[in-house]
Formats: sequence, structure tokens, C-alpha cells
Amino acid sequence: MNLVLIHPEDRAGDDRYRISGRRLKHITRVHRAAVGDQLRVGLVNGLIGNGTVTSIQPDSVELSVHLEIEPPAALPVHLILALPRPKVLKRVLRNASAMGVKYIVMINCYRVEKSYWQSPILAQDEVTEQMLLGLEQACDTVLPEVIFQPLFKPFVEDVLPPLIKDRTAFIAHPDADRPCPRQIGRPITLVVGPEGGFIPYEVEKLIAAGCSPISLGPRILTTETAVTALLARLF
Amino acid sequence: MNLVLIHPEDRAGDDRYRISGRRLKHITRVHRAAVGDQLRVGLVNGLIGNGTVTSIQPDSVELSVHLEIEPPAALPVHLILALPRPKVLKRVLRNASAMGVKYIVMINCYRVEKSYWQSPILAQDEVTEQMLLGLEQACDTVLPEVIFQPLFKPFVEDVLPPLIKDRTAFIAHPDADRPCPRQIGRPITLVVGPEGGFIPYEVEKLIAAGCSPISLGPRILTTETAVTALLARLF
Repeated sequence: MNLVLIHPEDRAGDDRYRISGRRLKHITRVHRAAVGDQLRVGLVNGLIGNGTVTSIQPDSVELSVHLEIEPPAALPVHLILALPRPKVLKRVLRNASAMGVKYIVMINCYRVEKSYWQSPILAQDEVTEQMLLGLEQACDTVLPEVIFQPLFKPFVEDVLPPLIKDRTAFIAHPDADRPCPRQIGRPITLVVGPEGGFIPYEVEKLIAAGCSPISLGPRILTTETAVTALLARLF
Repeated sequence: MNLVLIHPEDRAGDDRYRISGRRLKHITRVHRAAVGDQLRVGLVNGLIGNGTVTSIQPDSVELSVHLEIEPPAALPVHLILALPRPKVLKRVLRNASAMGVKYIVMINCYRVEKSYWQSPILAQDEVTEQMLLGLEQACDTVLPEVIFQPLFKPFVEDVLPPLIKDRTAFIAHPDADRPCPRQIGRPITLVVGPEGGFIPYEVEKLIAAGCSPISLGPRILTTETAVTALLARLF
């Protein structure tokens, strides 16, 4: 936790914020903060600054907070992912949030196991929790929006077109001839398939919708490694 | 497992290889292979080709193997990492192997917890297992070499110089002014610090040894995400 994220509901008056739970534990056990110490603090979806510890109780810590700096720039990407298995989903949400992605769509396709859609990780609270962990790691405050699209065809035909409009759209596909562009410098939409890849029908539908296939080379990477590598190369 | 890795000791005569254990389970349960099916096969530290399933027994599967293709190109990097916590170490070994790293040095420094050096994950068998998983994912056969250096100063003064010779050497450091170069096109040595970063003394020693600080930007990434992002941008 390189940034303590505070929420509007933590506010205890004026510039004072009272926090508890996981963040309290981290501040007392990992930071080993004492009264008077300063911590880097950010308001969720707001500014970054510092918080001076004014009191430590067994069930809460109080900070006097001064916010002044804008959070780091977002990546101009709509990230569209075949829903990965729950354990990977958690890491992908954390990593994508840490890297600055602000708009994520999780889609269904042939090689996504049905059971993944039943995972408790898909609950909004769980999704938000993973993204908060990513933001705390990267010193960002702005929560990504995450949308779940459990039907492939309606997604490609109705939801995808506005997500591609005025953007360059890519589908990461190991068989593609075109290497992943570097430092693209403009807003993009990036589609990443499941372990095992999209089936040909899905690739065709995505290409017909306007996505160009790109490849990271002959090595097949896991979803989480591929997403990080693609974003690092594209931006 | 996109590639079934076979070992010289699996050889059962001529072009026949008999495999068991984890790989057997994967072939029968995930690939659901039947006699006559072809699988992509690679010989550890050797060529890639295909294997035709000739028999399936409860405790082994036999393949008739034909090898002909060179494994994908390695990344020309000596990767030097502050030893991460065991769970992260496993993922870093898998990911670095999958991305094509062939030489990894795990070092100690001030912010590496002493307990990490006691982890059973550091046993050669465990390390090799994680790297085999990375190779099977990425369709590579060449096992990286991994070296552990539990003393920082002797490492920097005695072990590092030959690892840097005739290479450009970088230390990934969030405070660096210089952005991480892109598509560097020559052999490098890359040093990545622990969660929380190297302390100033360590950064100074590494710079004095010839490493230039580079940064991925204001976002602080976890070790595993940083390694993937750095390699994707540098190569």
C-alpha cells in the first residue's frame, strides 16, 4: 500500500478522516505509523496529498488530511477481456488498475468456462476491492469502471461499436502477422482472448467489427502477463 | 500447457517417450487426448515438434515424438531481482521463463525479508518446476539458469561486473528521470528492486557499478508486473 485511499464516508469533520479495517491494519502493522507520522493519502476519485496521524485507537486511526496533487494520467484504453478464471481475474483487475486502465469490459466467449460467471469475485464489492488494491499500489485514486457482458454476439454487435468509435481497435492474437505497435500515442480499444484463444468465428466477428489482429510474438503468455506486456508496449 | 515438455529420462526407446505425473493428468484431463491424437511436444533444452499418442495407461501415456523446430529466440537479458516473497517468486519465475529470460540472479538487499531466504520454494526442484510451467505456457524448451546471491555487497562488487560487461545495464527505479528505453535491440542487464525499493546506499552502489536508473513512470508496480512491463518495453 503505497497510498492510503480514503473515502468520503471516512470523513470525521473538516480535514479529519477516520479509517479502520484492512487499511488500519496496514498502517499500524506494515507502516508501523505513530502519532505525528505523515502518510501519502488519496481521496477515491479525487486528489492525492498527505495525512498526518493524529490518533491511533485499537479500531481506527485518525488522519489530518491535506490533498493537492492530481492523480497520475490514465491510459487511454478500453480494455476488453475474455473473463478469466477467478484467481486470475483478481490479479488482472489489480494489475490493470495499477497500470492506469479506467474502462474494462469482461466478455464471454466459447473458451470461457461457464462456472467463471458464477464466481463470487464478480460481485461489485469484490471487484472494487481488487481495483482499490491496484490503485493503492500504484498511487492512483481513480476507480476503473468494469462492465460484464455475458453474451458474445450481442456484445460484438451492439456494445463494441461505440467502444471502438474514434479509436484504433486491436485484438491480441498469437497468429497475427502484425506485431503489437509501440508507443501508439492515441486512444485505443484492446481485446484480449481467453486461455486457448478466441475460436475462428469469434476472431472473424471481432475483425468484422473493426479490430485489427496484433501479436506479441511466438510466445503464448497467460492473460495477466499478456495484458501487462501489451499495455507496456502500446503506451 | 501449450507444449508438452519431455525429458531425456522419459525416453522409452527410439522415438518413444513415456510420461506420467502432472503432465499425464494434463494430457488426459485438459487436452482429453486419445490414442492417435497429436500434441505439440518439446525436449527440455532441445527442439520442438509433435508427439502422437500411441498408448494411454492409468499411470503413463506414450508418445511417438518427432522434433524439428528450434525453440523461440531468448531475450538477451541478465535479469537481477531482489528476492521477492515466495508466492511472488513463483509467479516471477514462471513469467520470466515464459517471456524468454534465460539468466536470473536473485539477490539480497535491505528490504528483502530474511524469512524469504528460508522458503522451500528456493530449492532447485521447486525453481525448475516453476520455470518448466513458464516454458510449457510459452512453447519454449530452454530452461533459464537461476542463481541466488544472499549477500548484497559481494554481489555488487564481485558478481555483477562480469554480468554487465559488454552490456547496457539498467536499474529500474521509480525516481529515475530517464524513461525506460523502448526496443533497445542489444543485450542488457536489468536490475529490479524489492517492494519498497532499494535504499539509497544500494542505488548508489549499483550506479557506481555501472547501472543507469530508468523508470516506467509515476506508477509504482509490483515486482511481477514491473518485470513484465520492463521486458515488454525494452524488447
